[in-house]
Amino acid sequence: MVQVIAAELVWTGERFEKAVHITVDGDRIVSVGPAQAPADVRLPGIALVPGFVNAHSHAFQRGLRGHGESFPAGKGSFWTWREAMYKLVGEISWKQFRATCVDAFTEMRAAGITTVGEFHYFHHAVAEDYGLDRVVLDAAREVGIRIVLLNAYYNTGAIGEPLQGSQLRFRSASTKEFLTQMDALGKDLHTTQSLGFVVHSVRAADKRDLGEIHRESKRRGTVFHMHIEEQPLEIEQCREAYGMRPMQVLLNCAEVDDKTTMVHCTHTHPEDMMMYRTCGGRVCLCPLTEANLGDGLADLETIGHVALGSDSNNRISMLEEMRWTEYGQRLKTLRRGVHKEAAHLLRHATVEGAASLGIPAGAIAPGHLADFTVVDLDAPTLRGATPDTLLPALLFGTSEEAIAGTCVGGVWSLKRDA
Amino acid sequence: MVQVIAAELVWTGERFEKAVHITVDGDRIVSVGPAQAPADVRLPGIALVPGFVNAHSHAFQRGLRGHGESFPAGKGSFWTWREAMYKLVGEISWKQFRATCVDAFTEMRAAGITTVGEFHYFHHAVAEDYGLDRVVLDAAREVGIRIVLLNAYYNTGAIGEPLQGSQLRFRSASTKEFLTQMDALGKDLHTTQSLGFVVHSVRAADKRDLGEIHRESKRRGTVFHMHIEEQPLEIEQCREAYGMRPMQVLLNCAEVDDKTTMVHCTHTHPEDMMMYRTCGGRVCLCPLTEANLGDGLADLETIGHVALGSDSNNRISMLEEMRWTEYGQRLKTLRRGVHKEAAHLLRHATVEGAASLGIPAGAIAPGHLADFTVVDLDAPTLRGATPDTLLPALLFGTSEEAIAGTCVGGVWSLKRDA
Repeated sequence: MVQVIAAELVWTGERFEKAVHITVDGDRIVSVGPAQAPADVRLPGIALVPGFVNAHSHAFQRGLRGHGESFPAGKGSFWTWREAMYKLVGEISWKQFRATCVDAFTEMRAAGITTVGEFHYFHHAVAEDYGLDRVVLDAAREVGIRIVLLNAYYNTGAIGEPLQGSQLRFRSASTKEFLTQMDALGKDLHTTQSLGFVVHSVRAADKRDLGEIHRESKRRGTVFHMHIEEQPLEIEQCREAYGMRPMQVLLNCAEVDDKTTMVHCTHTHPEDMMMYRTCGGRVCLCPLTEANLGDGLADLETIGHVALGSDSNNRISMLEEMRWTEYGQRLKTLRRGVHKEAAHLLRHATVEGAASLGIPAGAIAPGHLADFTVVDLDAPTLRGATPDTLLPALLFGTSEEAIAGTCVGGVWSLKRDA
Repeated sequence: MVQVIAAELVWTGERFEKAVHITVDGDRIVSVGPAQAPADVRLPGIALVPGFVNAHSHAFQRGLRGHGESFPAGKGSFWTWREAMYKLVGEISWKQFRATCVDAFTEMRAAGITTVGEFHYFHHAVAEDYGLDRVVLDAAREVGIRIVLLNAYYNTGAIGEPLQGSQLRFRSASTKEFLTQMDALGKDLHTTQSLGFVVHSVRAADKRDLGEIHRESKRRGTVFHMHIEEQPLEIEQCREAYGMRPMQVLLNCAEVDDKTTMVHCTHTHPEDMMMYRTCGGRVCLCPLTEANLGDGLADLETIGHVALGSDSNNRISMLEEMRWTEYGQRLKTLRRGVHKEAAHLLRHATVEGAASLGIPAGAIAPGHLADFTVVDLDAPTLRGATPDTLLPALLFGTSEEAIAGTCVGGVWSLKRDA
């Protein structure tokens, strides 16, 4: 089906333009140009931007919202939060898991997110059935969000240690079993679904397995993601075990390229980052989660390509992720404008996210997926904005009330009749 | 008029309670207790919390949203932002000023704010007419928001320097003229309006005038607010002029008490803060603005009573101000729970704000003003919350979509029929 779309304003990569028509055939944009033919989809009072790409999510952690925020001993940390998360993992049924995924994905669409990179390590509903892998895909399908299932290999509880307790629900017994499951998952994916390879962290796999899975990912041409250097303790333990920092381990056993994304890099050594960046490696930051967990602030100026993720989904807002990406750096450096303008921030949530997930999205341009975030120009929080100030007004001054809906692969979902 | 209000949940200071009736007579709460008589106002699916108090606002700066966020030279700062602000001041008409105030106050109510402390230094529409003072009050009245007009004395452009250019629209020619205008303003205030005294900053008044205005404020029993130590440059210039830091100047020429609020204190020396705190002095932080301007993070653990303000109104969200008050400290200390629980954060936006502004608000308790923030328990972002997890879910996991409206002095304004 061909649709000609006429919105009041369209973000064409560097600015908002008026009187632009977008022609969509099926799930792809085929042309973007001056208004000509009568439009099929008329959107007055609406600006279209590329659909937000959430490059790192653990959907089930939406179930922890409001939990783990009391500190009777006055000593909360990432690790006490992890205990709360493990408790949830131990208790949740597959039905609750599915409902929580649906809630998280629904909230994402309301926040303008059209693609989620679901970093998925919670595999087993019963014994080692890998039942929850399919449940995540089904939940995304129900909500109509595009998903890249970043499926995780999780084999050890800490470096050289067996999995324990709740962690057993994450278990891949071997790389062979893991690859077999990847093959099975790949067989009947919907057009809005694809797969990526993950090793959970250097804590969760030995070096040999990490290398093997990265190689296999490369052989298949898919993306590879891993958590890295979010907490100083992880770095210390890795140095004790291997005499190297986690990023050095990665560089040592994998041929990093631009399909590789490391998530967090909060405490990555500048020399390691330089090396990683030289290889083309990408980074995903998760400002809301990294602030909530007290991880710290990565040094954005040393990093090359940056995507953004909602991670723990304690709050789901790409707008807030974008502004606090910049605000965190302003607070760290006491300067304004680490990003020279809002357009750079938008790239993190669109172009860079899409590249990190290996999908042709993130831009309103021919050949790209017809994924749009629909901005409500009548939102009171956008009052007074002009085409020139709209993007910074949106990114720094608004929240989800300014999002009127989304379009995923040419299929619209608007909060109100437009 | 007496109203008996039955909401599903009511925040009674330390927890949410069910089956509680609030009785309101006119604009005051007269009792809070077990449900008995049939209620006049039934609010199923609603939780009531004390109305948010925004203790520091410059409403007209709402007009800068989306402006001043491009940095072609890559060198933005607080001071370049101030130039953009002065440009707006130079250009704006009284009609635009009024419309911008109405926009800002309307957005505040949508964000659950029931009282604004309007730190008002932009006095003159034409020549030195003080015409905009009344315009601010009228705009607040139109919107129905409670206002404490924190009226500012602004006499010098920098220490010992005359006012220049746009700054002339802020001018008080003398303390005598300023006090005369305060008297005039005090004559016909609405019941939702009161006055507070302000000296804009140590940049804007000499020590003698600062001392005189603080004394006069004390004599009249009103609150006193001043900007302080937001930027290192202000501290340097003050040391050059007086051989003291701004906080030392204040302590030197004013008898600080618990009616005194210093706004920002981003770079306040711990010894000065200790002294200030010992006198009972309060602090107002503005996390969103301080992040936007690259000011830095105050050391919350050294501060006593903390209120919160939306300041530049680039974004108006007390929920985001609350969570980033805590998140900023987590990022600074790499620990979680500088506030032991969400209830402490809520106090900043309610009890402490009200105390800073000198009004009997901030709590749902007898004798307090009937000012409520109305929380929509059906908001998807609150799905799964229980009375125990509702507050942290609200503060860390939601935005304005979870605010169903406000009640100011017994007068309700709900976004939808409830």
